Amino acid sequence: MNNPANVAVVGGSGFVGGELIRLLLQHPQVNLTAATSAANAGQPLWRVHPNLRGATDLTFSPRAMPECDILFVCAPHGHAAKQVKEARDAGIRVVDLSADFRLSAEAYGEWYGPHPYPELCAEAAYGLPEANRDAIRSAQLVSGVGCVATSMNLALLPLRDGGFLDGARVVVDAKIGSSASGNETNDAGMHAARSRSLRLYAPTRHRHAAEVQRICGLTPEVSVHTVELVRGALATVHVLLPSDAPAEVALWKSYRARYSNEPFIRIVKERTGVHRGPDPKLVAGSNFADVSFHAEGQRIVATCAIDNLMKGAAGSAVQCMNLMLDIPETTGLQHLPVYPQ
Amino acid sequence: MNNPANVAVVGGSGFVGGELIRLLLQHPQVNLTAATSAANAGQPLWRVHPNLRGATDLTFSPRAMPECDILFVCAPHGHAAKQVKEARDAGIRVVDLSADFRLSAEAYGEWYGPHPYPELCAEAAYGLPEANRDAIRSAQLVSGVGCVATSMNLALLPLRDGGFLDGARVVVDAKIGSSASGNETNDAGMHAARSRSLRLYAPTRHRHAAEVQRICGLTPEVSVHTVELVRGALATVHVLLPSDAPAEVALWKSYRARYSNEPFIRIVKERTGVHRGPDPKLVAGSNFADVSFHAEGQRIVATCAIDNLMKGAAGSAVQCMNLMLDIPETTGLQHLPVYPQ
Amino acid sequence: MNNPANVAVVGGSGFVGGELIRLLLQHPQVNLTAATSAANAGQPLWRVHPNLRGATDLTFSPRAMPECDILFVCAPHGHAAKQVKEARDAGIRVVDLSADFRLSAEAYGEWYGPHPYPELCAEAAYGLPEANRDAIRSAQLVSGVGCVATSMNLALLPLRDGGFLDGARVVVDAKIGSSASGNETNDAGMHAARSRSLRLYAPTRHRHAAEVQRICGLTPEVSVHTVELVRGALATVHVLLPSDAPAEVALWKSYRARYSNEPFIRIVKERTGVHRGPDPKLVAGSNFADVSFHAEGQRIVATCAIDNLMKGAAGSAVQCMNLMLDIPETTGLQHLPVYPQ
Amino acid sequence: MNNPANVAVVGGSGFVGGELIRLLLQHPQVNLTAATSAANAGQPLWRVHPNLRGATDLTFSPRAMPECDILFVCAPHGHAAKQVKEARDAGIRVVDLSADFRLSAEAYGEWYGPHPYPELCAEAAYGLPEANRDAIRSAQLVSGVGCVATSMNLALLPLRDGGFLDGARVVVDAKIGSSASGNETNDAGMHAARSRSLRLYAPTRHRHAAEVQRICGLTPEVSVHTVELVRGALATVHVLLPSDAPAEVALWKSYRARYSNEPFIRIVKERTGVHRGPDPKLVAGSNFADVSFHAEGQRIVATCAIDNLMKGAAGSAVQCMNLMLDIPETTGLQHLPVYPQ
Repeated sequence: MNNPANVAVVGGSGFVGGELIRLLLQHPQVNLTAATSAANAGQPLWRVHPNLRGATDLTFSPRAMPECDILFVCAPHGHAAKQVKEARDAGIRVVDLSADFRLSAEAYGEWYGPHPYPELCAEAAYGLPEANRDAIRSAQLVSGVGCVATSMNLALLPLRDGGFLDGARVVVDAKIGSSASGNETNDAGMHAARSRSLRLYAPTRHRHAAEVQRICGLTPEVSVHTVELVRGALATVHVLLPSDAPAEVALWKSYRARYSNEPFIRIVKERTGVHRGPDPKLVAGSNFADVSFHAEGQRIVATCAIDNLMKGAAGSAVQCMNLMLDIPETTGLQHLPVYPQ
Repeated sequence: MNNPANVAVVGGSGFVGGELIRLLLQHPQVNLTAATSAANAGQPLWRVHPNLRGATDLTFSPRAMPECDILFVCAPHGHAAKQVKEARDAGIRVVDLSADFRLSAEAYGEWYGPHPYPELCAEAAYGLPEANRDAIRSAQLVSGVGCVATSMNLALLPLRDGGFLDGARVVVDAKIGSSASGNETNDAGMHAARSRSLRLYAPTRHRHAAEVQRICGLTPEVSVHTVELVRGALATVHVLLPSDAPAEVALWKSYRARYSNEPFIRIVKERTGVHRGPDPKLVAGSNFADVSFHAEGQRIVATCAIDNLMKGAAGSAVQCMNLMLDIPETTGLQHLPVYPQ
Repeated sequence: MNNPANVAVVGGSGFVGGELIRLLLQHPQVNLTAATSAANAGQPLWRVHPNLRGATDLTFSPRAMPECDILFVCAPHGHAAKQVKEARDAGIRVVDLSADFRLSAEAYGEWYGPHPYPELCAEAAYGLPEANRDAIRSAQLVSGVGCVATSMNLALLPLRDGGFLDGARVVVDAKIGSSASGNETNDAGMHAARSRSLRLYAPTRHRHAAEVQRICGLTPEVSVHTVELVRGALATVHVLLPSDAPAEVALWKSYRARYSNEPFIRIVKERTGVHRGPDPKLVAGSNFADVSFHAEGQRIVATCAIDNLMKGAAGSAVQCMNLMLDIPETTGLQHLPVYPQ
Repeated sequence: MNNPANVAVVGGSGFVGGELIRLLLQHPQVNLTAATSAANAGQPLWRVHPNLRGATDLTFSPRAMPECDILFVCAPHGHAAKQVKEARDAGIRVVDLSADFRLSAEAYGEWYGPHPYPELCAEAAYGLPEANRDAIRSAQLVSGVGCVATSMNLALLPLRDGGFLDGARVVVDAKIGSSASGNETNDAGMHAARSRSLRLYAPTRHRHAAEVQRICGLTPEVSVHTVELVRGALATVHVLLPSDAPAEVALWKSYRARYSNEPFIRIVKERTGVHRGPDPKLVAGSNFADVSFHAEGQRIVATCAIDNLMKGAAGSAVQCMNLMLDIPETTGLQHLPVYPQ
């Protein structure tokens, strides 16, 4: 084994930052040198992330560029770009978990507004290993992934491979837990208001659609609901075909071709038992993405369940880091989910 | 006020039966004379329905045809038809909450199998007052409504009225709570397995689509998920149009035209605040159905939230009974939901 | 029936205020003339209390003393006293749901600090009808009740009557839902942090102990936990006796003597079935308080489950109002809880 | 590193068995050779434990004695004893997770009934490393621990050490999640009935009190509640003293003395922040036990939060196995909990 790589986290006080720190602290081949937080500088990490109590003596650093081999940027959308620019100017390889480098500069302009560093957009590799493994390995800048985007892309990739999306309209009905809203305080997130709510909070034009356009070549029509979960995202992808759906055996073939060798993707399609298909409950805390599919008439229904903070954010980021460091891709990511939970 | 009507419930030990009994006990113009249950005969009602403790001294009767003006049948699908036949032969007016009389005999044959009493199907009025009020008033036999069907029909009716469904494909992504599975014990419903689950349990060919065909004239493509709720159903209706969606003002007009005078339908479409659209959390325990709509590109997204045991079952049944008795339609159904819950 | 009484609510934008408004709107013998809220003046009530949508056209008034026969004060502790003083000076009868008039001036001083209007304390009747019915009837000022206090007092009253508390130490382990913290935004109440939490948030010296001292004559040692509930409070009262506990038949006798004629108290003590004892799940949304008891060695364990916003706040307040208006005590409070929920 | 030890699980289809298998599959120094289940023989493990999908190709064996260095017995109470006897007769070292060997034969007789193999009871080491580490190392038979017992013992041990229990009465008010009831189907465990319930299901004479008697030398008076959790147990231990409680600094000293070097025990006692004390939410999925304490008047309130399937069952069992194999005690148990969850 080589010397462990030095890694650092900018903006480590949010939920994604905390999840990333949890993974990095347990990773056998990296050394977490710093985590920054302007608001919490000087505080032990576990004051903000109570699960880390006893696991580290690190305290949050004031916001400054830490020295490291790979820098993770978890700053909010818009703020991250500047941090990334600064790190890249210093020659540091970056994984940016914000939305700032997920799209081409043009697409970014369309969905988010003008990009401050369009030249950096061109350099960035989209950080979904299952779609972009080779580019990530050698990239100096890797983007994070949107959590809803990831559940959509992983459901759709085999369908794109099989040509099943040709001429189709794709409607995605997504459901996500409260951790996707971050840990800033707000009225809508208070327990009495949010508990057991089931709301269509983003009925149309969800920005994560742009990440599907980038990876799968089509723009889905996306509606996102909040559900009673803390962790978890489920995308139900309705593919409306112009003619009869293929036989399920053809879909099996396509999903197997795409995912048989993927360490974190499981095809879950049982005829009996309690848990017959993907469910965020079954992947929470892990880096797994469970996928499935069904055909009826002129429709395919595909689903993908992930933990939004893991495969939908920090887990994929660490997977990218492993690729960048040329170590086994699953290193530090193999914890099995717990059941029941 | 006239003398209260005598009513009785056959098959009163399930969740729908319990909800119906709760409403009838509190109804100012009916007298609940009997509730039958073969399995629980002789037991006080509150042994099965603990919320009724202290509210009634009634005990469950053995299964036999009670004398009454209106009989509610809550027997399981398939068993109900025989009870209904017997009651109709005795000249008793019936509200049947099972699926046995919701469809024409032909449609029933297609979705459920051969109907034992096709002639009774022809006589039955579909029990959704918002769609079928006049027929219900004078009917001798009124069907219940499917809970998912009701959330779909109430979301779609104004769109049908406005001609917005012409040439459209309709995909429904529905979400329901655990009470919709009834109170029979089973592995999938155990708390440790079911808690916080988010499963696509019925991906295709859901029978409630047939009730939409009956009321709205098209057959939606329906996928139903379980979510972490006990009570509640939300239908997210994706209407895929062949051309650009109408302006939202046109949709407002259509929803208002249909629902302005409906006592139990609320259009919920706010731009600010915590609760901007329909959410089962906001109607639980009440007979309200909250609806909303959004337009994007060539798609309309409409939603409807109900309490599956109320507007989706017992509440609509009592509303039908009020119509049949020619008393104000809202009698006994005006309890406001509680918030927060 | 006499003319309905005019009632108004000061400070109607919190959870207790909303619950009170819900009850008053549905009450057949009162007329809600105004609800004040400085922060929400001019807004429809349903913007703050979404369950009231469609139920009223009232808007919040700016904070000023409304004209009415009975005024409910729902201002925060400390602020309420001034409102009450002003109303009493104007000769208006008041039910104050804050903690400001629950104790004698002396006891208030000990638990909360110096009281601004000690003379009003002497005039106030403690607003728990089951303990203080006669005084409430004729009172000009009635206090609210603490939710945890109510669950403790209702569990303990029969034990005090029976002399079972003589020489005993009383430890109360209470559990409450998130609505008890009100609808102000705060970190600890955010869904991701609060969901499924089980915390001993008030380990010692809980102020509601003073209300038990007032009613039952002893000061319990109280520890309060948050649990995963929005509504509900359960007090588990451990009575540690100096000698052997009485036979359960003696306890039955005492609870029956105290509660047989109480319309809102149910003794729940079953040997079989799913729901064998008090559970907030079974009373949520209603004014019921369910109580039970067990004896072992030198210990009695008594429990009381209530809805903290109903019997623990607004429900008891309306019950007091009914007494003050000399109308049947259960008027407007008889809604049965729903099950399952 | 030596060769990995061979281990096997008898009765691997319950929740505890599944949790144990999860830990053993991820353990770097053992090799899981077999898991038996009469009912599921021939089925892949993941059919019963869906979190294990993709993690192992093992199938359940029919019930027979597997060859191994250490055998885990997860059979139900009463059935386990026979399995243990057979394994011990074959010279296999055993960790028995049932209640069958937690007590002396005499105490077992008092709480459970006559023991079939009293001579084996004498041989068994109680499987709580924090209380019995040395005996476990060399034992041929190690018992499991009760989950409520563990939360009580870990809260109480420092108090016993400090002499703070002398002359005291100890009342324990415990709260546990639904996974503690196992995965057998039953009415009370159905989601609609169990969801958000808060019931005192075991008011008196809980058998786990006997394990406290064994470890701490006194018999607490225990009442156990179900709460809305799948995983987790919290014991709130009320120590009623005959005279004034010690200063908290003395308690700090005692807890630190006992636990400073314990890898899985964390003292959680903060004055600010969201998570100020033990909460099962913060340890779920991990082997941590968080403890705290408060003093008031003549009472100490101590709490301990664990994951009932981990520190309360399978986690402690693996910790014992590590001791028996003379490898670092934390091996395979260091996964940090996730937050938020």
